[in-house]
Amino acid sequence: MTPSVETWAQELAGESPYVVTRRALEVFGVDVAIAFSGAEDVLLLEYANQTGLPFRVFALDTGRLPPETYQAFAAAEAHYGIRIEYCFPDAGRVESLVRKKGLFSFLEDGHEECCGIRKVEPLARQLAGLRAWITGQRRDQSPTRAGVARVELDGAHVGPLGPLVKLNPLAETTAEEVWDAIRAFGVPYNPLFERGYRSVGCAPCTRAVLPGEHERAGRWWWEEATRRECGLHR
Amino acid sequence: MTPSVETWAQELAGESPYVVTRRALEVFGVDVAIAFSGAEDVLLLEYANQTGLPFRVFALDTGRLPPETYQAFAAAEAHYGIRIEYCFPDAGRVESLVRKKGLFSFLEDGHEECCGIRKVEPLARQLAGLRAWITGQRRDQSPTRAGVARVELDGAHVGPLGPLVKLNPLAETTAEEVWDAIRAFGVPYNPLFERGYRSVGCAPCTRAVLPGEHERAGRWWWEEATRRECGLHR
Amino acid sequence: MTPSVETWAQELAGESPYVVTRRALEVFGVDVAIAFSGAEDVLLLEYANQTGLPFRVFALDTGRLPPETYQAFAAAEAHYGIRIEYCFPDAGRVESLVRKKGLFSFLEDGHEECCGIRKVEPLARQLAGLRAWITGQRRDQSPTRAGVARVELDGAHVGPLGPLVKLNPLAETTAEEVWDAIRAFGVPYNPLFERGYRSVGCAPCTRAVLPGEHERAGRWWWEEATRRECGLHR
Amino acid sequence: MTPSVETWAQELAGESPYVVTRRALEVFGVDVAIAFSGAEDVLLLEYANQTGLPFRVFALDTGRLPPETYQAFAAAEAHYGIRIEYCFPDAGRVESLVRKKGLFSFLEDGHEECCGIRKVEPLARQLAGLRAWITGQRRDQSPTRAGVARVELDGAHVGPLGPLVKLNPLAETTAEEVWDAIRAFGVPYNPLFERGYRSVGCAPCTRAVLPGEHERAGRWWWEEATRRECGLHR
Repeated sequence: MTPSVETWAQELAGESPYVVTRRALEVFGVDVAIAFSGAEDVLLLEYANQTGLPFRVFALDTGRLPPETYQAFAAAEAHYGIRIEYCFPDAGRVESLVRKKGLFSFLEDGHEECCGIRKVEPLARQLAGLRAWITGQRRDQSPTRAGVARVELDGAHVGPLGPLVKLNPLAETTAEEVWDAIRAFGVPYNPLFERGYRSVGCAPCTRAVLPGEHERAGRWWWEEATRRECGLHR
Repeated sequence: MTPSVETWAQELAGESPYVVTRRALEVFGVDVAIAFSGAEDVLLLEYANQTGLPFRVFALDTGRLPPETYQAFAAAEAHYGIRIEYCFPDAGRVESLVRKKGLFSFLEDGHEECCGIRKVEPLARQLAGLRAWITGQRRDQSPTRAGVARVELDGAHVGPLGPLVKLNPLAETTAEEVWDAIRAFGVPYNPLFERGYRSVGCAPCTRAVLPGEHERAGRWWWEEATRRECGLHR
Repeated sequence: MTPSVETWAQELAGESPYVVTRRALEVFGVDVAIAFSGAEDVLLLEYANQTGLPFRVFALDTGRLPPETYQAFAAAEAHYGIRIEYCFPDAGRVESLVRKKGLFSFLEDGHEECCGIRKVEPLARQLAGLRAWITGQRRDQSPTRAGVARVELDGAHVGPLGPLVKLNPLAETTAEEVWDAIRAFGVPYNPLFERGYRSVGCAPCTRAVLPGEHERAGRWWWEEATRRECGLHR
Repeated sequence: MTPSVETWAQELAGESPYVVTRRALEVFGVDVAIAFSGAEDVLLLEYANQTGLPFRVFALDTGRLPPETYQAFAAAEAHYGIRIEYCFPDAGRVESLVRKKGLFSFLEDGHEECCGIRKVEPLARQLAGLRAWITGQRRDQSPTRAGVARVELDGAHVGPLGPLVKLNPLAETTAEEVWDAIRAFGVPYNPLFERGYRSVGCAPCTRAVLPGEHERAGRWWWEEATRRECGLHR
């Protein structure tokens, strides 16, 4: 039986990201999958691999990712001997948007519509078959993520047995700790990080940041800081 | 009534690319569209625009195009005041391929399968509603294109009234002439051409060429020269 | 009369970088110059300009700077209406080194010899005509700079009147504060900072750093952390 | 005794670039050197190496070359086991120019002054110790080079024994033939050629060319086509 979110939160308090990841795999097996964005959340794959347990990984291929991110996906597949479950947006919805508004409508009226079609809907489709998912969200990533918990009930996504459990093993880990671990374990990382990127997303909506800028300054920079979420995490 | 391909071939022999384009628009109206790849075939849009007639343009967004090509599409839309009809691949087919074989399977077993899903099928869907299409094919582009005619019956694609007419206004134009015209008319071109690219396609399957290399050396370079077609033109 | 270094240190304790810069210009006039590396020390030019006093700037053009840094120099000249006093290495010394050991000898036997010819000697020549110089050194830049003071007697460089006074207005300022000020004042900065660089030097000896890496990890990375100084500051 | 230029011209008529190079080395020995620009004239080093004779190479390091060209020099040194004799401009002259006019004065009043200091003077210094030099000039490179001969008397440069002999083994070779040979012999080439460059010079004065543009369109493009020579060849 699955522990309640409250029980888990107590059990996992103070445990390392590795332990949180391992417990998730032990409890949910094939009914849990890691959401991999092609960024520094690749560390979750490293922890999953260290458990020796089988693990599932999915990624949202929006059709607008930078070429480097496809390389990062392929590098992770090769390094960990896995196949990623890519999720692709619906042709009809994409065509309907871009034929009417062009390829850069998000610069005019916000990224929600495009993210909705290219990320949120494919994610919902993928989660519909799961009981839980594991994400790389961290509190230090954004003002909108300051309250992220290690274990949450995902009110926005429903699977065959009800709302999903969402695990954020890195919630209380800092960017510096994540990168120390990536270097220490020799984890393959997205080459964009060698060009000043501190966050990874669609090519037209992500850019390198200047020294002293927050990583979220490289995402949807033409919009307000509090709206710089793609809608995957609510 | 539509002239037969044979009649047209005679009528258009010796006429300029502009005249071929204009005649196609006059004869077929909304039942013809220009296939725009984001490359130097942008010159077709210039000729179409010069006619003063309305014209349709479509483009195959494979989901793996380089970011510069999306910019080229947007620049053409802005310059000519048009909306391009983008064609996007089917989510189920893409997911089925990449979940099983990864994102770079074409390096192992050839580009036909991937091109089939991301280009050929969406093209067929688009052409199914047309009576004719206009392409930028030229004889000097490839050994496989040495026999391209200005007007052809397209044996591979069928519309509601039977096989499509395929017009190649640039068939006998050279790359040098195309680029002279692009510069002379101030046509907006893909910035990849400023980085050594001589042909434009999907990011992982296109690269810059060296001096003295044929433009086709920048496409599917790991395969034989005679197989460097994506299957759009048969 | 010039205050002693001890007197100055007391006088300037707790004053802002702007005040330190202004006092240096007031006291030394044309006998002081700002050493500008093309990096975030451009902020010193902003402060100098804000004083309304005339100010001198020099830069070491080693002959191996990245093209972006020459642009940064030109941008600063245009923005502040100044001419930078560039210092160029001696032809005979450079030729002697590179004809014997090649263009990348520093990868084999350390950067001291090359820096000595391209930076240290031209700097000494420039400083020989001054009584004081202003640098952008900060304590947070490197373990080797943890003890940098706002005002120092420069034991390594002698001018016509004896050892130079060295002023480091940013000694106790953090990288984050420097960049906040650069953005706030609209100071033109080196475009390399938009590509992941956190420090600027010669092209073959500088690179972008990863998230969580110290800026000095981008300089002479094949050598020990404690030796990552070019010899300008002793 | 050295043959006269007229005798040589007859003797070498119809001979291959390899034979012209070999004969130059046989006749002049250590009194001849190859001028290597870091571009496709690297083929001359290949021919010299194939002779089995010792050969000298020099290069003009202007202090503004792109980083890739330094790599090309180092790659040629490693591939052929040679040391290149780099020629560096005089510090006083460079400083005098850039302190007065800035780093991009050539955009305002032409490239002759800067080329004079960074190329022409160091070349004259190098040639002063030679009896002959070998260059990669070709007739197809520029309208200004249409009359280049395989063997010429260099009226512009004088060595200890009088005017130099100038050999241009590639005078009648085409760019396409040069690149075919580079590929066939596996000669290491400047990576700029993989980014659309067709000519190589100083970073601020060289750029990639578009399809159909002449290689000289990538040099001093803000000046007239007939003035696009740096003054090395008169």
